[in-house]
Amino acid sequence: MLPLLTRIDHVGIACRDLDAAIGRYEATFGLQVVSLEVNEEQGVREAMLAVGRTQLAAAAAGDLRPGYVQLLEPLGPDTPVGRFLARRGEGLHHVGYGVQDIGQALDAIGVRGVRLLDKRPRHGSLGASIAFLHPADLGGVLTELVQAADPA
Amino acid sequence: MLPLLTRIDHVGIACRDLDAAIGRYEATFGLQVVSLEVNEEQGVREAMLAVGRTQLAAAAAGDLRPGYVQLLEPLGPDTPVGRFLARRGEGLHHVGYGVQDIGQALDAIGVRGVRLLDKRPRHGSLGASIAFLHPADLGGVLTELVQAADPA
Repeated sequence: MLPLLTRIDHVGIACRDLDAAIGRYEATFGLQVVSLEVNEEQGVREAMLAVGRTQLAAAAAGDLRPGYVQLLEPLGPDTPVGRFLARRGEGLHHVGYGVQDIGQALDAIGVRGVRLLDKRPRHGSLGASIAFLHPADLGGVLTELVQAADPA
Repeated sequence: MLPLLTRIDHVGIACRDLDAAIGRYEATFGLQVVSLEVNEEQGVREAMLAVGRTQLAAAAAGDLRPGYVQLLEPLGPDTPVGRFLARRGEGLHHVGYGVQDIGQALDAIGVRGVRLLDKRPRHGSLGASIAFLHPADLGGVLTELVQAADPA
């Protein structure tokens, strides 16, 4: 079987105060925010902080993008991340893996007994196409597939 | 401030049955186990599954190793991962980031108000030197620093 996953794209971290969380990651690790977006569909305000290699170095290595810390603040309590915070508190929310072709990846995984939370890709941060897989079929891990945006 | 983190090294996932978890990641994503170790000090049996680039390709890109899914089964209930499972169930346990020099990284982070769970590096999987940072100082995220083993 061909490996589907090209990289660890990001770790998604739920926080109550996005600005405080950004400040903490900047001050502790020297990470920098490369994107700050509101995703109404997912009910979050989110920041992407690049880890390690720059976009350019990632591209040179054959990846479309580096790894990211993704900080997620819910837009309200009745959102997936809002409910996660109420239930579990702040912390690791999900992991995102890179794939080359998200349509093909969903087709392949769908027949392997893992339920797809998104049958079709939707919009993620930095112009990516994303889809979530059911945590109950992956040992309690909410798992996201990420096809990076085509370089402009 | 110079960035300390060179890559997302791994995501650590707590599971009750390591063999079942390995089977699930192999069958779903085509990942392969590159190391299977018992770490008595940390009270776990663990598997490392490489994500994406091979070791060789990682080295060519200037990284000492690729990213990994790290599956962790506790050696007993009275271990950190055993207590995690009892409290939270299976799922994401920690995230590990690569650093170039773990001694320097601990010195730098220790003066930035983040408590070190390990004041000195200890042995991690695949010969790495590792140290954990306190989750309460990082928004609920148990965070590990990883200095990869020197190439032989």
